[in-house]
Amino acid sequence: MDFFFEPNGVAVVGATPERYTGGHYLLTNLTLGYKGPVYPVNPKYDQILGLKCYPSVSDINGPLDLALVFVPAHAVPQVLEDCVTRGVRGAILESSGFAEVGPEGKVLQDQCLAIVRKGGMRLWGPNCMGLIDFSKRYVFSFMIPEAWQGSINPGGISLIVQSGLLSAGFITTLMSNKTLGLAKVCSIGNKSDVEETELLEYLLKDQATKVVCLYLESFVNGRRFFELSSSSEKPIVVLKGGKSSLGAEASASHTASLAGNNDLIKGALRQAGIHQADDFFEMVDIARTLEKDFRLQQPPEGEAKIAIFSYSGAAGIVTTDHMVANGLTLARLSSKTRQRLEELSPAWMPIKNPVDYWPAMEKHGPALAYKHAIEVLHEAPEVDGIIVHLFAGFGLWFLDMKEIMSGIQKPRKPILFWLIGPEKGREVTRKALEEDGWPTFYEIHRTVRVMASLFEHLQQAGESQNIPSIEFQANVALKELASQPEEKRTRILDEYEAKKWLQSLRLKVVDEVIVNSYAATLRAANTLGFPVVLKGMAEGKIHKTEAGLVRLNICTPGELKRVYEEMRRNEVKPQSFLIQPMLKGDFELIVGITRDPQFGLAAMLGLGGVWTEVYRDVVFRLVPLTQKDVFEMVADLKGQALLKGFRGSKPVDMESLADWLIKLGWIALAYEKIQEIDVNPLLIIDGAPVAVDATIILR
Amino acid sequence: MDFFFEPNGVAVVGATPERYTGGHYLLTNLTLGYKGPVYPVNPKYDQILGLKCYPSVSDINGPLDLALVFVPAHAVPQVLEDCVTRGVRGAILESSGFAEVGPEGKVLQDQCLAIVRKGGMRLWGPNCMGLIDFSKRYVFSFMIPEAWQGSINPGGISLIVQSGLLSAGFITTLMSNKTLGLAKVCSIGNKSDVEETELLEYLLKDQATKVVCLYLESFVNGRRFFELSSSSEKPIVVLKGGKSSLGAEASASHTASLAGNNDLIKGALRQAGIHQADDFFEMVDIARTLEKDFRLQQPPEGEAKIAIFSYSGAAGIVTTDHMVANGLTLARLSSKTRQRLEELSPAWMPIKNPVDYWPAMEKHGPALAYKHAIEVLHEAPEVDGIIVHLFAGFGLWFLDMKEIMSGIQKPRKPILFWLIGPEKGREVTRKALEEDGWPTFYEIHRTVRVMASLFEHLQQAGESQNIPSIEFQANVALKELASQPEEKRTRILDEYEAKKWLQSLRLKVVDEVIVNSYAATLRAANTLGFPVVLKGMAEGKIHKTEAGLVRLNICTPGELKRVYEEMRRNEVKPQSFLIQPMLKGDFELIVGITRDPQFGLAAMLGLGGVWTEVYRDVVFRLVPLTQKDVFEMVADLKGQALLKGFRGSKPVDMESLADWLIKLGWIALAYEKIQEIDVNPLLIIDGAPVAVDATIILR
Repeated sequence: MDFFFEPNGVAVVGATPERYTGGHYLLTNLTLGYKGPVYPVNPKYDQILGLKCYPSVSDINGPLDLALVFVPAHAVPQVLEDCVTRGVRGAILESSGFAEVGPEGKVLQDQCLAIVRKGGMRLWGPNCMGLIDFSKRYVFSFMIPEAWQGSINPGGISLIVQSGLLSAGFITTLMSNKTLGLAKVCSIGNKSDVEETELLEYLLKDQATKVVCLYLESFVNGRRFFELSSSSEKPIVVLKGGKSSLGAEASASHTASLAGNNDLIKGALRQAGIHQADDFFEMVDIARTLEKDFRLQQPPEGEAKIAIFSYSGAAGIVTTDHMVANGLTLARLSSKTRQRLEELSPAWMPIKNPVDYWPAMEKHGPALAYKHAIEVLHEAPEVDGIIVHLFAGFGLWFLDMKEIMSGIQKPRKPILFWLIGPEKGREVTRKALEEDGWPTFYEIHRTVRVMASLFEHLQQAGESQNIPSIEFQANVALKELASQPEEKRTRILDEYEAKKWLQSLRLKVVDEVIVNSYAATLRAANTLGFPVVLKGMAEGKIHKTEAGLVRLNICTPGELKRVYEEMRRNEVKPQSFLIQPMLKGDFELIVGITRDPQFGLAAMLGLGGVWTEVYRDVVFRLVPLTQKDVFEMVADLKGQALLKGFRGSKPVDMESLADWLIKLGWIALAYEKIQEIDVNPLLIIDGAPVAVDATIILR
Repeated sequence: MDFFFEPNGVAVVGATPERYTGGHYLLTNLTLGYKGPVYPVNPKYDQILGLKCYPSVSDINGPLDLALVFVPAHAVPQVLEDCVTRGVRGAILESSGFAEVGPEGKVLQDQCLAIVRKGGMRLWGPNCMGLIDFSKRYVFSFMIPEAWQGSINPGGISLIVQSGLLSAGFITTLMSNKTLGLAKVCSIGNKSDVEETELLEYLLKDQATKVVCLYLESFVNGRRFFELSSSSEKPIVVLKGGKSSLGAEASASHTASLAGNNDLIKGALRQAGIHQADDFFEMVDIARTLEKDFRLQQPPEGEAKIAIFSYSGAAGIVTTDHMVANGLTLARLSSKTRQRLEELSPAWMPIKNPVDYWPAMEKHGPALAYKHAIEVLHEAPEVDGIIVHLFAGFGLWFLDMKEIMSGIQKPRKPILFWLIGPEKGREVTRKALEEDGWPTFYEIHRTVRVMASLFEHLQQAGESQNIPSIEFQANVALKELASQPEEKRTRILDEYEAKKWLQSLRLKVVDEVIVNSYAATLRAANTLGFPVVLKGMAEGKIHKTEAGLVRLNICTPGELKRVYEEMRRNEVKPQSFLIQPMLKGDFELIVGITRDPQFGLAAMLGLGGVWTEVYRDVVFRLVPLTQKDVFEMVADLKGQALLKGFRGSKPVDMESLADWLIKLGWIALAYEKIQEIDVNPLLIIDGAPVAVDATIILR
């Protein structure tokens, strides 16, 4: 990818002397930063901005790695042919009018792709804003020169944005704050060839990049993205567009991309330790805080313990509300910490967390009060992070924050500021704090959300200690089972067959007998014990309940006879019958495996029954799984309390549950013909999971 | 309350010539705006700021309605005594050190309250920042004079803030934006006497006030607050602090207030048509948009239909995601609207919503494109509101928004701007738009949240058409039942008795027989039909399942015998037995009535079983209820899909469900001795609710 980021020679195809046009901006930007040879290309002109202009790329002499292309869509294929002929290594195609506008545009885009593939060239875009390198001042983009000149501030945050125009407007806005440092911005548009995974790999190795932010509407190679992220030491923040089905519809029209299963993507990103954002500035707020390299203490029981330091009780309360909603908790201050804080606070004001230090500020002045309290809280071992409320205003309330924070020793715990005040005072204070590495925020909810984001993957890491990985060896029974369906050409295994696969891995399933006559049915029922369940088996029918093929809680032989006869006359005729005892569990789970086109095999865990769909309480992780993954899946369920022993019932045996999900993953990994496994319900009886129904779908 | 808002004569107790002190600021602020007589009070001085200073309030001659008190807490009782003696009508006590610091402070506060109550004086505070009237320039507060001088901008938003310091810092921040217009700000602190309800009543009648915002940690008189809000034409926005139990703990220490049942408060505020916010600036963002008096179209199917107008596909997608999360939907543009938009857009770019108008902006310039498209969308009958994405930057991208918006005819639909860009361009554009009544926001999530807030109560109003109100007349059976418990002195009615109350109102309960011998039990079981349920009745035992007194799904006489004998030997001995058929429902609800100390009688509806507690899916409304209230309760349930006919089951009969909740409300209204009614489970069988268990608790 170096010929994109550090090209020797750049052509600007579509360069023009006409002002206020993209072609003019592209060329101007190059002349303002890039030091190598620049070649305007436009048959209408001999010279632009004092540079010799060429009628076509083929006419250029001299070193030439990269072409920036900004001509109408229909003219692009010829330009790319010329580039291939000339031996150009890469083209950044910034024009629009391709896949994002519909099927005709898609044909044109595919035509372009075929040209570069054949010619061994790489294509970036189309429908994008190109590339900016802030430390080198390379702007390979048609963004307006005024937008970056004078406000370019090199730093550690790199962005990959699946969008064109937003990236320009957004980056321009970010640059105007003077404190955010950017490394590289890659606007990848329709990503016909160069896509996020390749660029992520490049940026993870890039010296200048400390944190990578991505706005994506789809993942071209989800599994590779996952693997890169999982093994990355650099923090990654993702804003996924098209989370809702309506958003996904808009997305499809935008960059012609597949939105994918959002629950699955969310789970995979979480598993990879990626920070997830919901809005553009939130993404950057998380990234700029991660860049600060705070020392994060391992919160012993999962929830990070935060101290709130405030001049206002009300702000302390609202901050606490947001903390609870974000999985943070209030640090319980030790008596030593309280004593030290009481040194400046009048005796009538009790010290607790949130620390309402107004009386101390009034008595000793805010400068001394802030300095003392922040130092004390930073030194307190019981505090994982601090949220400081600061009003930057007039007179006494215009504080020298550089001086106040100068006593904080490294390594630093996260200290985030909720900073309000009139624009004038606030802006100076903001810059002073940000320059020294202290992040500030204008809203409480954001301050808290970012603090929570710092700790979220640390908690996960904490739980991963000493959990052995398990190796899979297909046993004889499974091998035998696996060889059967192919012969029979079955696409959907019925529950009786599916459960045999599960049993072969020693996963517990309900007792059951397959029968073909009433006499055999009655014998089986007497053996299993009433009440029983009768199921009619009809090939290809997964939804047996809806087809009238399931009768629960049959109490007596008389009832069994009646039900049996009824089911024989059912609209969908059963070929055979399955009889099972009527199990009573504490509640139902659903577990399964699915094969995603972008991310590959993924496991699902959810609260079962109608509730799965009503509350959509399901969690995904990519296969293969570890016990840690399964424990995290449980922790991500909204209804997780149910699994921890609710109303006196036994807690779910977590190792057994992990066993279930890990082993289902094994089967699907071992047998590529498996498209989907569905165990529903997985009944919890005295804490132990038992499969009552299951389906395996082959592809 | 007029003597607080328009006093004739104000004393400043604790005035001082020492700069940078609250006592100095208080007096300075008065001299800068208030035109009536001002009396500094401090025995140490003869004169302050050129005004004659009095040793005590009693020494003041001349008209004197109001005292602003800012002396140490221990000195306050004497000051209040002096005020009473002098005939002062009200005091604003801005000192802290009272109930907010603990029991000792509470004693002092109660002492102050006793003095004013006895003397017929009103007390505002303590622990507050007082009162500001922006149009009169009355600042009865110790806030720093620089904070408001030169930036006071009178307008229609009034605030009531249960907090001291935050209000000052927050208001100062708001004022510095130059476009937000404020009417009155009331910081009420510990609200020992004057509280939010009285002030709300005053502000709802206040000419200057168009919208009221409240930050509250508790409601002193919730029922009255509810009634005032319900009948108010002026919009009200509430930020409730202490939503979480941790937040409530912080709250208790702050202004010594009771946080109450937050689910109940949330339901009551919603029922009253109050807009609810989660953060301080969000509260004001909602209020300043409500102030604009947009014409809101009635969305026919509940969800408001919004058009998104953008220069960026990505921003359109993220906006759509937030819209879906906030209950808004994308307007489906008519062919006429699309045709008109296509006038400027090149043929290759398909027009749909979100409208990605970049190609049109490029072709015709952004000024023309914005003007044309916003007018077209505003005129489209299928559009209820518009979210416009705007980048305010340089050159072509610095637009004259006043001119662009000048063609929008009144009445105006809501047009909200997501405005980004470098500070310089953005700030000028923001002011231009805000001055003409067009709200702007810096983040997508907030833009969408505010748009949703505009429509939320309109949707509710829409459903309220043609629903008759029902009158309650206690029948003979109920009167007879109601007279019994008092004689027996029962505090908790067992399920058999409780269900008789329900039956007397023709609410359907499970068939059941009370029995005392096995023979009678078996007879009853045979009559009701197996399988049956056996329950042991022991006085005062509400949680029968946990006590081993409930056995479900008894299939045969043999099993019944065994279970009966076992239960007779149970640790908690049953006095009698209840036998019921084992009902099979589609799912369980829970309904009930509770009596809240602040809000009075409230009804609850929730998804039943363990799920109530696991997902906490419960909704409250205050009694008396209308059908509309119950329909809204259902719509507020997270699991509402379940009630609408899930997986082929019959939808819940909404009129029957409404009947249940309305009638439970009647009983509790009619009989004040009822503390609580709990019907759990209310089983749904073929769409009809049937009570299986119930409890009534008397007080």
